[in-house]
Amino acid sequence: MDRATRRGRFITLEGPDGAGKTTQAERVAGILRAHGKEVVTTREPGGTALGNRLRQVLLDAETPLQPTTETLLMFAARAEHVAHVIEPALAAGHWVVCDRFTDSTFAYQGDGRGIAKRDIEALAAFTHPGCWPDLTLCLDVPPATSTERMQERTLDGFEREDGGFYRRVREGFVKRAERETRIVVIDGSRALDVVTAAVQDAVEEFVRRLDAQG
Amino acid sequence: MDRATRRGRFITLEGPDGAGKTTQAERVAGILRAHGKEVVTTREPGGTALGNRLRQVLLDAETPLQPTTETLLMFAARAEHVAHVIEPALAAGHWVVCDRFTDSTFAYQGDGRGIAKRDIEALAAFTHPGCWPDLTLCLDVPPATSTERMQERTLDGFEREDGGFYRRVREGFVKRAERETRIVVIDGSRALDVVTAAVQDAVEEFVRRLDAQG
Repeated sequence: MDRATRRGRFITLEGPDGAGKTTQAERVAGILRAHGKEVVTTREPGGTALGNRLRQVLLDAETPLQPTTETLLMFAARAEHVAHVIEPALAAGHWVVCDRFTDSTFAYQGDGRGIAKRDIEALAAFTHPGCWPDLTLCLDVPPATSTERMQERTLDGFEREDGGFYRRVREGFVKRAERETRIVVIDGSRALDVVTAAVQDAVEEFVRRLDAQG
Repeated sequence: MDRATRRGRFITLEGPDGAGKTTQAERVAGILRAHGKEVVTTREPGGTALGNRLRQVLLDAETPLQPTTETLLMFAARAEHVAHVIEPALAAGHWVVCDRFTDSTFAYQGDGRGIAKRDIEALAAFTHPGCWPDLTLCLDVPPATSTERMQERTLDGFEREDGGFYRRVREGFVKRAERETRIVVIDGSRALDVVTAAVQDAVEEFVRRLDAQG
């Protein structure tokens, strides 16, 4: 296949708040660029004008939303994000590195808020049929670490949830990784350089495997 | 059953833009109040703080959204509307008169924009399980009447659609009425007092039927 028409790859970072996803997303983009890939970095919720408006609605702690509403808004923002950012980049042969995607909806709205997994599956099939990450790095940290790291920043609506919510979210990510082979769990509670090395290993391994496939 | 604990009834007005729904919604509320009912009037999209924010996003003609996104936002606004306005009112024994509900999503996003009906059915079941109108008055006007009446006001994103869109929306409403016995189609292209009389007849008939059931 001609290099210009080869579809790019879609990599997501997942995990509880305070796990270091944003830092590692930049690292992943750097590793890919060192391999000569064109890289687009983005995040959810957000990534488009509508996404940023909805992000504000979602994170506004003054307006507690129904779990159903929250789930529908997440997918509305995602529909725009996939159509205007992710799919065009992949079609142009670029690699996309995204901070959170549908796995977060399974963990937060599913395990955290009790929305049925089959409803989330149906919404994902409606919103982004055929568009799933090729590789997902899930940074796992225990709720205590997550909470400790978040002391240093202003907490939004999600981050102000109680410990039970965070325990369910964390377990949700880990259980989902057991069923989805594209998800690699990385212990994010270690020193930053150890976590960074583990992320680098996972990305290099993914690139090597792809190159071997030609 | 004790009168205070009797659940209220849910009446919706549907039809293309310019069919006179808003005027008739007020008439319906008046008729019901004359029968001694406590009435809550509301509308979609809107009806809650979130709904009004999303209404602005949806109607903003400067931001054309994916049909998928539009559909998800409609249901997100509806989830809040049902949870905070419609269900509490019905539970308190009040009657709810709502200008547009899920039938509009079937007509506009389904017939108009091509979203699959089975996806809209699934979203409705997710968003408002068990909450459907008891009576729907569908004001039917041909696209020409609808367009002519709309000359008099500033057009929003939906209202600026072409004639083919409006023809599909109108046919969508009529076809849906053929399958759903709760939907009464009223020819809205006649003189206002004739339409008002037809609406009154339909509402009086509904109330009489309910009273007969005890």
